Amino acid sequence: MAILVLRLGHRKERDKRVTTHVCLAARALGADGVILSGERDDKIIATVKKVAENWGGKFSVKYEGNRKRAITAAKKKGFAVAHLTMYGERLQDVAARLRKKRKLLVVVGAEKVPSDVYSLADFNVAVGSQPHSEVAALAITLHEIFGGRELSKRFPGARLRIVPQQNGKKVLRRGK
Amino acid sequence: MAILVLRLGHRKERDKRVTTHVCLAARALGADGVILSGERDDKIIATVKKVAENWGGKFSVKYEGNRKRAITAAKKKGFAVAHLTMYGERLQDVAARLRKKRKLLVVVGAEKVPSDVYSLADFNVAVGSQPHSEVAALAITLHEIFGGRELSKRFPGARLRIVPQQNGKKVLRRGK
Repeated sequence: MAILVLRLGHRKERDKRVTTHVCLAARALGADGVILSGERDDKIIATVKKVAENWGGKFSVKYEGNRKRAITAAKKKGFAVAHLTMYGERLQDVAARLRKKRKLLVVVGAEKVPSDVYSLADFNVAVGSQPHSEVAALAITLHEIFGGRELSKRFPGARLRIVPQQNGKKVLRRGK
Repeated sequence: MAILVLRLGHRKERDKRVTTHVCLAARALGADGVILSGERDDKIIATVKKVAENWGGKFSVKYEGNRKRAITAAKKKGFAVAHLTMYGERLQDVAARLRKKRKLLVVVGAEKVPSDVYSLADFNVAVGSQPHSEVAALAITLHEIFGGRELSKRFPGARLRIVPQQNGKKVLRRGK
């Protein structure tokens, strides 16, 4: 299954850390790439690429300023579109349908998402109908789609690899 | 099961949005309260209290500047302490043990967590051994502990309540 994450409405100052969390969570939890929209922010793109380089696996990072174009381009390529919003259908009711898709674009907004996104989406999905966090919503959605297997995902070609420990830190570094 | 979330090392400027996401995700995903540590930030405390007031349920928000005191006080009250860190044991290996606890303090850091936290914790838990986001890690941990039931949690006394919709927004407001 191919999953891309589209981050809408990034504001350079206000959202830099949360957008970085969205990108890194997407990568760590099994997505294949992110598309950033809103204000262009080359620093975040560089940060995420650097993490992917050091920690392995394949992960694409792209910018598309026009959100409609990003969504319709994905649809043309056969992606189903799941927009995460507290107003949507309950994740527990749609997860089974999402799992059946071969290609999925998961859309997460920053502050307020324009109404065209609701109509363009094939699914508007609520991870709990409470205000919280697009990072949390994305994480649980990916976890539900992959059924927990994402936590054991391998990241080939990593320069850095952690060996899980009860206490302390163990990091293996691949020689250059 | 009682769950509190301790947010370590908050920095007022840098972390304001991510710490807010930690608090709101904790509330929305079934925790009973948060304890904030690091720099004192009354604005975040007010924001989270306001959300809890409007959206219902019980949720405590406290500040404790001394992280050791926060952790040892919780331990004295019978809380097991699970520190979320990419270096820890795999969540998939410890989740069953966490679920058996009657009281759990879930600790999430900001940038770099001091080593005393690793030793004070009963569990150092990795939600994937990749760099990503404490918000995502917290979300998946709560989701694993509650087995998905947190998404159907009720929030009594809410002034605002969302009715899940396939498209659009439906919010019920309780009359004053």
